[in-house]
Amino acid sequence: MKLRVKLLGITSGGKPIVILNSEDAEELGIKGMDRVVLKYDKTEVTAIVNLSSTVVSKGEIGVYEELDHIRLKEGKLIEVEVAKFPKSLQFIKNKLVGRKLSYEEMEEIVKDVIKGNLTDIEIASFVVALHAFGLDLEEAANLSLAMVNTGEILELKKKIIAEKHSIGGAVGDKTSLLLVPIVAAAGLTIPKTSSRAITSACGTADRAECLMPVDLSIEEMKRVVEKTNGCIVWGGALHLAPADDIFIRIEHPLEIDPLLFPSIMAKKKAVGATHLVIDIPCGRGTKVKTIGDANLLAKDFIELGRRLGIKTQCAITYGEQPIGYAIGPALEAREALEVLAGKNVPDLMDKVCNLARILFKLVGKRADPLKILKSRKAEKKLREIIGMQGGNERIKAKDIEVGSYKLDAKAERNGLIFWINNHALIQVARAAGSPKDKGAGLLVYKKIGEKVKRGEKLFTIFAEKGRKLRRAEKVLKELRVFGIGKRNEMLIQEVKEIPAYKKAFILER
Amino acid sequence: MKLRVKLLGITSGGKPIVILNSEDAEELGIKGMDRVVLKYDKTEVTAIVNLSSTVVSKGEIGVYEELDHIRLKEGKLIEVEVAKFPKSLQFIKNKLVGRKLSYEEMEEIVKDVIKGNLTDIEIASFVVALHAFGLDLEEAANLSLAMVNTGEILELKKKIIAEKHSIGGAVGDKTSLLLVPIVAAAGLTIPKTSSRAITSACGTADRAECLMPVDLSIEEMKRVVEKTNGCIVWGGALHLAPADDIFIRIEHPLEIDPLLFPSIMAKKKAVGATHLVIDIPCGRGTKVKTIGDANLLAKDFIELGRRLGIKTQCAITYGEQPIGYAIGPALEAREALEVLAGKNVPDLMDKVCNLARILFKLVGKRADPLKILKSRKAEKKLREIIGMQGGNERIKAKDIEVGSYKLDAKAERNGLIFWINNHALIQVARAAGSPKDKGAGLLVYKKIGEKVKRGEKLFTIFAEKGRKLRRAEKVLKELRVFGIGKRNEMLIQEVKEIPAYKKAFILER
Repeated sequence: MKLRVKLLGITSGGKPIVILNSEDAEELGIKGMDRVVLKYDKTEVTAIVNLSSTVVSKGEIGVYEELDHIRLKEGKLIEVEVAKFPKSLQFIKNKLVGRKLSYEEMEEIVKDVIKGNLTDIEIASFVVALHAFGLDLEEAANLSLAMVNTGEILELKKKIIAEKHSIGGAVGDKTSLLLVPIVAAAGLTIPKTSSRAITSACGTADRAECLMPVDLSIEEMKRVVEKTNGCIVWGGALHLAPADDIFIRIEHPLEIDPLLFPSIMAKKKAVGATHLVIDIPCGRGTKVKTIGDANLLAKDFIELGRRLGIKTQCAITYGEQPIGYAIGPALEAREALEVLAGKNVPDLMDKVCNLARILFKLVGKRADPLKILKSRKAEKKLREIIGMQGGNERIKAKDIEVGSYKLDAKAERNGLIFWINNHALIQVARAAGSPKDKGAGLLVYKKIGEKVKRGEKLFTIFAEKGRKLRRAEKVLKELRVFGIGKRNEMLIQEVKEIPAYKKAFILER
Repeated sequence: MKLRVKLLGITSGGKPIVILNSEDAEELGIKGMDRVVLKYDKTEVTAIVNLSSTVVSKGEIGVYEELDHIRLKEGKLIEVEVAKFPKSLQFIKNKLVGRKLSYEEMEEIVKDVIKGNLTDIEIASFVVALHAFGLDLEEAANLSLAMVNTGEILELKKKIIAEKHSIGGAVGDKTSLLLVPIVAAAGLTIPKTSSRAITSACGTADRAECLMPVDLSIEEMKRVVEKTNGCIVWGGALHLAPADDIFIRIEHPLEIDPLLFPSIMAKKKAVGATHLVIDIPCGRGTKVKTIGDANLLAKDFIELGRRLGIKTQCAITYGEQPIGYAIGPALEAREALEVLAGKNVPDLMDKVCNLARILFKLVGKRADPLKILKSRKAEKKLREIIGMQGGNERIKAKDIEVGSYKLDAKAERNGLIFWINNHALIQVARAAGSPKDKGAGLLVYKKIGEKVKRGEKLFTIFAEKGRKLRRAEKVLKELRVFGIGKRNEMLIQEVKEIPAYKKAFILER
């Protein structure tokens, strides 16, 4: 049926919706929530049908802004057909009865997810079935490849491409800002993609953005890497494994993540990684609490990597307190620049150098990360990357603006710091505006094992807005961020009623 | 925030949608697909947010027709608030990690399902989690009760209330049209609710509608039962266990049915059933293929009934061929009336009388169903019910119009009928227009075990429209409906390539 486009200027928040006149819909034999295919030039897209007798006349089709990308023009005649029953639905049903899915089946599902051919109900059932019935490593590999093959791919003419990924959970972890230039300075290719914070205080893309633009296209990314060996870009706009964004939309509200491994590995495969180190921060207050759990996770990453042709090694790292001292985009970018310029931040440097060493060994490269760091070759390399990505390559730490509203948190007693509540730090930083306000965050002065005196500064909160500083102050009052005590004080907390439990972390991908 | 109502005249096909002006949405801190609560008089409903800067001005809220039931008036000011995070989501997450749910948790989930507080993603994840992790009998009972307690209830002042349910799958099964008057004529109360066909050729509500209105309110239903002891009404408009309709919308496309037991039993509990017989048609071509499977199903029904205070017994019945000879609403209603008037249709009568006998025994009633049938007391009773429900109580079989377009299907060879393909019969009947065209259907002349000669009539197809008769003819050509052969012919079919498999049935509830 040929229908005339009427642009409605309505957005659903993600779903491609069209409004048909009720009479036209009846003639097509469809009702609300059914799907139609719009054919226009050589484009074919699927849309969900709503109905009206008033908003659109017979012969018209009202179009939501979600379909803007196909550039329909007001008044244009387009062909509208009933969407065929997606074949992938049968494969989802197979998984729902516990059957194993082949590569072809996974690909068909992923394709239909991207094309909008499956409803939320159908996608959710797929995700929950994967969660409940599990997926074995062969299925995980197939799903990874299907996600790779339905998205953009970075093609570099290199035999060895190194990559690093952290599953997240360590606070203030600016490792990548140092690791990428060290690895690139050693002559290896490292096309690093990174993410923005979802539930954390700050993601690598948020940090890097204080130094340079990170919102590059895949062609721009390629140019940067070909010139400098490295890059630090935001993965979100690259359309690497684009199905992942849709799966994440399903997984997050449910707090399940059966697609975690396939999704992480798909994105690494899509940039052509041949060698990969995965950082698994471990300990109380991180996502992975015990070394045993971290090992199980590592085993799956390594095996899935093997099946995808990515030589993978994992590093289980200490994550019970912030890495370095800064938390929040600007403060962390500052700290990274300072370390590259020679400042001594032992835990951060140890972590960075160990991860770099693992990568070097994995690819058979003889190089000393600490030397590259101390010789300031890494700093030089980062400045090259900054320049190529469109930033100011002469940027200095103090050029990076931090929030002017400040508040010190002080020790309430003398003693030893036994623990730091990572999740509380995140909550305070987020209340202060991080990561949205780049200058918001925390600067921590004391770490676990250090002695403090009553009234001594533990950390400073930075905010760009007075209102947000007050909000952070309020959050701070409800939380115990530092555990200070004497060696023989055993009681941590009294539980008088059932405590509210909230999952603090979602693994990053 | 107070916003002015603008009725949009758009229907989404089921979802309650409102359109906010983008500026208002930003002020409320919400985006597309978020949820708001509309407060109006004493009503509170949840709606999904879409956004526009053109369709609604600042200060306005555009309202879809799905919200018509709260009777908003154009230009009326209503209070709009951000919907709170539904507590039930945490319970769904608990089920997603395999935990068992309590009554209170089930009720919270069911309430939020009905109120529209949960997204399709969330409801689908609940249904799939129940499917994948299973629910034990306690959970099933809790879910049943939660569904009962969130819907309408039929309150009859009777100690004993009998009910009958068939899980469906037998073709041409007009048992209820005969059983209800027999049981009611014996002095027992039987407030029968029934369903329309979804995937089958005809449901009891479709059949009964050829005799009388079935679309009654719960008050009307009560009046009929109080007067006549029985009724045959469509359950769909009664709001008994209303959550079920929403769960079914999720389950059907996925072809899973974890809520089957809770849903069936909830509807029986909601009409106050104390004694229940469940018919499980069994055999090739039905939903339950083997007697072993039927027994497993029966066991769960009986135990779930016990927990809900409904004395339940199951009858496993032969379902490998049509019950009686007629298929399709009008043809089946005719056949039922004829049998009540004295016509001899042995298999149908045997099934009806056995189910009635089981019910009588279950409640401790001494009565002979066959006598009630043959004495035409059952016919008299059905006519009473027809009259009370607003039909013509003097209706005769031939008053019921059947389609005037006819086609005979004839035997292609001599032999014995070895099998009848129930699913093929359904497909042909549906192609001919059943159940939408009440006069469409089939009249079968031969049953399993009978001898036929080449060219002899096997069945007649009836249609109300020539176009649909031709469609049925086309469908018929692709199917083998009757298996005719000699005793020593062993080959049924040659399989040369992978056959397409399609699930033919969904259990009725």
